[in-house]
Amino acid sequence: MKKTMLAMALLVSANGWADEGMWQPHQLPELEAVLKSKGLEIDAASITQLTTFPMNAVISLGGCTASFISNQGLAVTNHHCAYGSIQHNSTAQNNLLQTGFLAKTLNEELPASPGSKIFVTEQVSNVTKQINQELTPQLLGKERFDKIDQLRKELIAECEATAGYRCGVYSFHGGLEYYLIKQLEIKDVRLVHAPAGGVGKFGGDIDNWMWPRHTGDYSFYRAYVGKDGKPAEFNAENVPFTPPSFLKVSAKGVQENDFVMVIGYPGRTNRYNTAFELKNMFTQNLPLSKAYREQTIELIKQIAPAGSEARIKYESILAGLANYAKNYEGMLASYQKGTTQQRKDSSEQMMQSWIKADAGRQARFAPALKNLQQLSEQSIEFQQRDLILNYFGYAQTFSTARKLYRLAHESTKPNEDRETGYQERDQERFAAGLKRMSRSFDPQVDLEIAMHFLKHYSQLPAKQRVAAFDTFFGLTGADVDEKALKEKLQAMYQQTKLGDEVERLAWVGKSVDDFKASEDPMIQFAVAMFDTDLAEENAGKELMGKFAVARPKAMEAVIAFNKTQNKPVYADANGTLRVTFGTVQGYQPRDAVSYSPFTTVKGIVEKATGIDPFDAPPVQLAAIQKADFAGYTHPVLNTVPVNFLSNVDTTGGNSGSPTLNGKAELVGLLFDGVIEGIIGDVDYDPALNRSIHVDSRYMLWQMEKADGAANLLKEMEIVR
Amino acid sequence: MKKTMLAMALLVSANGWADEGMWQPHQLPELEAVLKSKGLEIDAASITQLTTFPMNAVISLGGCTASFISNQGLAVTNHHCAYGSIQHNSTAQNNLLQTGFLAKTLNEELPASPGSKIFVTEQVSNVTKQINQELTPQLLGKERFDKIDQLRKELIAECEATAGYRCGVYSFHGGLEYYLIKQLEIKDVRLVHAPAGGVGKFGGDIDNWMWPRHTGDYSFYRAYVGKDGKPAEFNAENVPFTPPSFLKVSAKGVQENDFVMVIGYPGRTNRYNTAFELKNMFTQNLPLSKAYREQTIELIKQIAPAGSEARIKYESILAGLANYAKNYEGMLASYQKGTTQQRKDSSEQMMQSWIKADAGRQARFAPALKNLQQLSEQSIEFQQRDLILNYFGYAQTFSTARKLYRLAHESTKPNEDRETGYQERDQERFAAGLKRMSRSFDPQVDLEIAMHFLKHYSQLPAKQRVAAFDTFFGLTGADVDEKALKEKLQAMYQQTKLGDEVERLAWVGKSVDDFKASEDPMIQFAVAMFDTDLAEENAGKELMGKFAVARPKAMEAVIAFNKTQNKPVYADANGTLRVTFGTVQGYQPRDAVSYSPFTTVKGIVEKATGIDPFDAPPVQLAAIQKADFAGYTHPVLNTVPVNFLSNVDTTGGNSGSPTLNGKAELVGLLFDGVIEGIIGDVDYDPALNRSIHVDSRYMLWQMEKADGAANLLKEMEIVR
Repeated sequence: MKKTMLAMALLVSANGWADEGMWQPHQLPELEAVLKSKGLEIDAASITQLTTFPMNAVISLGGCTASFISNQGLAVTNHHCAYGSIQHNSTAQNNLLQTGFLAKTLNEELPASPGSKIFVTEQVSNVTKQINQELTPQLLGKERFDKIDQLRKELIAECEATAGYRCGVYSFHGGLEYYLIKQLEIKDVRLVHAPAGGVGKFGGDIDNWMWPRHTGDYSFYRAYVGKDGKPAEFNAENVPFTPPSFLKVSAKGVQENDFVMVIGYPGRTNRYNTAFELKNMFTQNLPLSKAYREQTIELIKQIAPAGSEARIKYESILAGLANYAKNYEGMLASYQKGTTQQRKDSSEQMMQSWIKADAGRQARFAPALKNLQQLSEQSIEFQQRDLILNYFGYAQTFSTARKLYRLAHESTKPNEDRETGYQERDQERFAAGLKRMSRSFDPQVDLEIAMHFLKHYSQLPAKQRVAAFDTFFGLTGADVDEKALKEKLQAMYQQTKLGDEVERLAWVGKSVDDFKASEDPMIQFAVAMFDTDLAEENAGKELMGKFAVARPKAMEAVIAFNKTQNKPVYADANGTLRVTFGTVQGYQPRDAVSYSPFTTVKGIVEKATGIDPFDAPPVQLAAIQKADFAGYTHPVLNTVPVNFLSNVDTTGGNSGSPTLNGKAELVGLLFDGVIEGIIGDVDYDPALNRSIHVDSRYMLWQMEKADGAANLLKEMEIVR
Repeated sequence: MKKTMLAMALLVSANGWADEGMWQPHQLPELEAVLKSKGLEIDAASITQLTTFPMNAVISLGGCTASFISNQGLAVTNHHCAYGSIQHNSTAQNNLLQTGFLAKTLNEELPASPGSKIFVTEQVSNVTKQINQELTPQLLGKERFDKIDQLRKELIAECEATAGYRCGVYSFHGGLEYYLIKQLEIKDVRLVHAPAGGVGKFGGDIDNWMWPRHTGDYSFYRAYVGKDGKPAEFNAENVPFTPPSFLKVSAKGVQENDFVMVIGYPGRTNRYNTAFELKNMFTQNLPLSKAYREQTIELIKQIAPAGSEARIKYESILAGLANYAKNYEGMLASYQKGTTQQRKDSSEQMMQSWIKADAGRQARFAPALKNLQQLSEQSIEFQQRDLILNYFGYAQTFSTARKLYRLAHESTKPNEDRETGYQERDQERFAAGLKRMSRSFDPQVDLEIAMHFLKHYSQLPAKQRVAAFDTFFGLTGADVDEKALKEKLQAMYQQTKLGDEVERLAWVGKSVDDFKASEDPMIQFAVAMFDTDLAEENAGKELMGKFAVARPKAMEAVIAFNKTQNKPVYADANGTLRVTFGTVQGYQPRDAVSYSPFTTVKGIVEKATGIDPFDAPPVQLAAIQKADFAGYTHPVLNTVPVNFLSNVDTTGGNSGSPTLNGKAELVGLLFDGVIEGIIGDVDYDPALNRSIHVDSRYMLWQMEKADGAANLLKEMEIVR
């Protein structure tokens, strides 16, 4: 009896965690009891070891997550994470985005898009002390920023001295802690299999962030290395990489209330924003960003109509723009309807009272909190202008010219002093970006984007204006002559050669004087803006240096206070490897509506119209009609489940993450969150925070019954 | 044990009925076992008696249903059924549509819109024999049509010889049966109470036909009669009508799976359409109608922008247009996704086989079925043109001119020979229509509607054209001169005086020669079109006369066949009093989504934006916030339910119908159906056919806690 009571107490306590938290692996031993009570069957300690199964099977693509699922370097991720590579290999005549792709042998595999990498995290070291001991109280503003930057670069350079590795220093809790992360960098990545767009992107932007969902958001890459087993550039002689471990794939899947765990690289959350920052985000920044983003989408769609070559080039950019336009819309709706701001206000007031109640706490925390407030106010002074100029950056000719000229400047310095992004270690990525532009650029679209945001810019009040920008575009008069401005842009686009890949690449390695002597109007723009750009950047560094003092101290206060409130303490997502766990469950999105945690193939038939994005392929519809589901059914629903929901705590960057059952078998791939819980990046709501996963049964069924991917099914280890 | 089995068998059989069927009261005794098994507590025989409780408490408003709920003639119906009356009493300054209205005393009650009536059905007589004995086989085509028309008029005239009554002869099963229905006609109807638009029309067109729903779609009328208790025109001296009985209103409401019964006047269903008619409806007629309807809405909204005086005039017309635009859209979606056509095709083939299998059946039914097919094909020959000219009729100046001239022609005949709508008994309704136009007409909107459909008309091929129409508008050339056409219309609208109520009414009673001599261009149009209009009408009557032979015989075949299939046999809705029953239940609209059968006040807060149509009044939101729900809660949900779903079989015309529990207490008001079941007018699907009801608890709670309608609550008999 006592034991039962204890077990119940544990369960309650486990629920008390509400499955919130993106945990650093080293934090997991503290959570062992909770994990076990929820259904983890493997040893909890094993998920704290980065160098053993299953952690070393989980890899980063830089922006997305993937996992190895065979001993020959086969990796599975989301279709939307491999989108750029599928697009890269597509033409209007042979559009793999539409038809899908399957390599039946290694020889048929296609190179991924330029710059595609697979990163295997091998080591995570706490370097907080090494950095903090150099940060004397005298170091303030830009000096402090530069010192942190220098220390980071030194740590990275030392780490990357071993060939084939990529390293990073990541700050946690706004600089309270720093970790050095060392990753094996695999450079030869190939596309193995992607389902048809009508499967992998079924529902498209319409269903994006939505439940019920029916998207087969999976694709396969393979990691290749040199014959010596070391990372190497693409080469026909390269061989498949042998990963240290790989995940088994479950054909049995999960059921409602089952334990699931997601390992991956969540990008960024802001759960510890101050009330002021939160309010600014939702009442100023996001509404403006959403508007500019939607305008950009509208422009691109108008100038590059569906089916045109130009549209194929912009599909990936459009997908990114649309994804976050919808994200912002959902965030704003949640904020306006919900109590996020009220709760943040009240918890901040409670913390302030808690600090005031004790002289020691008052002395320790109050100045930093006040300072943080002042810095926050200062940082948004030019917010609207900065947003407009950011979106102006979608005009790739302008932003590329600036980057090229900056490179010329940085190259005059010793490598270790160069700005991040312009060091020797960045050369390859830099060149890949210049090449990638050829497949995602159309001068007409580029021009119209520039024109659109120049018009926005020209309506800013005088104190928000940038003199060099005004002068270059002749925006100095009282009224803007839109016709003249358009003609100026048209002339620039006619004369510039930056639209040409060879010409673009030729600027790499040229001197500052070469740029100054250039007659290319885009290069002239970069030269004209340079001093201003640098001054702006330095002002930003000055501010960040100040934040680097105030924020960690303020976070100490928040953490100490949260502990008194029994709230979980974990760092905001920052692109590093995290573990999150929870259970499979549906939710109630609104009054009188219930969502089940599983969708089924029946729903595909319901939604299918034959027209993108509901263009389920005929071969799939025929397979559903045939109802040959044996081996892949959900035992209660008695059909193939397509997607499922869980309450794990994830965000962008987690895309492609393996979803594991208690035995660490792959039961799905995380690919999205629901719009009702989208405010989760700043505020986790246990009732509405749901992640969406592709069900492994659907992936396997589709591969076997519709796409004939027998070779891959044979290669994987499938648990039946 | 045997008894239990029997009871179970009964229940299965009851479910076998699937709650499909709009039953004529006289059919109910056959269904007594089913009704009792489902939860009817009162004597089933009592609902077959039109002159006893509860049937005589249910009344028709002509197009909507209502019910008496006090012994002083207080009647409750839907807000959307009283919409015209609320609009009639509104101005831009004092907009009752927005603010709502409550008469605290009888003196404060407002006259309903002109022509508003309350009809109390007192007698239903089967007159099939009287009509059929006159229909000799020699009577064919228009002669047969005219004979039926004449017999109907005679029966009606005889019935209406008693003052204060309105009678009608309704055909069932396409003329297989005829019933004479005698209704007391109450002419003094007053508006007593309507909630604010943000309650009564909460969700507006966006939520129309949708679940979850949160609409307080209720309003109150009062029936007045002369001091002698007989129907009388509006007069300050009139007194409230004492109804033969009235319904008690339940504050206890219903729960999931409870029995409910709806009594009302469903307008029209087409469940017995042939496969050919069905296909034409969904592939030709509805897509065109939907397009024309949406274009008309768009035009009106454009020319009468929100907030303008013109817009207030068109709100009611817009509501009607939008309602059915959405209806058509839902119907088309259901048809395209579902198996309606396949099932109709296959059931018709099965019936054909069943007929062929027996020489007697072959002789009896085959010729009529073949004939019906030919007539159906013939009837759609000019379908598109007819639709265009119907929508042209939304230009009220043109349609009014035609009606006025027709009246002049009909008035030259003896009363009994006049066309339906132009007899002495129709005079009052005719004049009311002419008056009502003043509150629903704007010349600029009228002109643009005419212009729009003239353009459509002008693109029709030569064989679809109407010579008189072409000549009048100068559309005889190869190309249409749109500018000239517009100028002609503008001149017509400048010169016509039909926009003026006094001028319009002055044409009533004028002679054919007066019309011919008129210089009013709209009257000239009516004169120019008259011969053509009449010829068209006679061709239509010829066709209808032919249908009147084929359809009843074909229906005999369908009924006989359906009986062999154990399908319920009930007549299509035709505006006569029907009873339907079922249970409170939710549904699964699509994969992974479940709808609960109750919405709650929580959902109002979720939807409220403060902006029409989600403009829940602050006083209501404050009352919800206060959570003072005592006396009106759903025992499981523990809050006030707003709307609920049941599977009763209803359609337009049922709006405002009382929803009764097993004791015949009013537990709700039917006001809508769900879009997923909207194809129900041609095809009942037990899984998706759901009606939406206002919950009586919500109505009473809102009246007490938000609107302070204590006087009405006191007047009603509330079951607590």
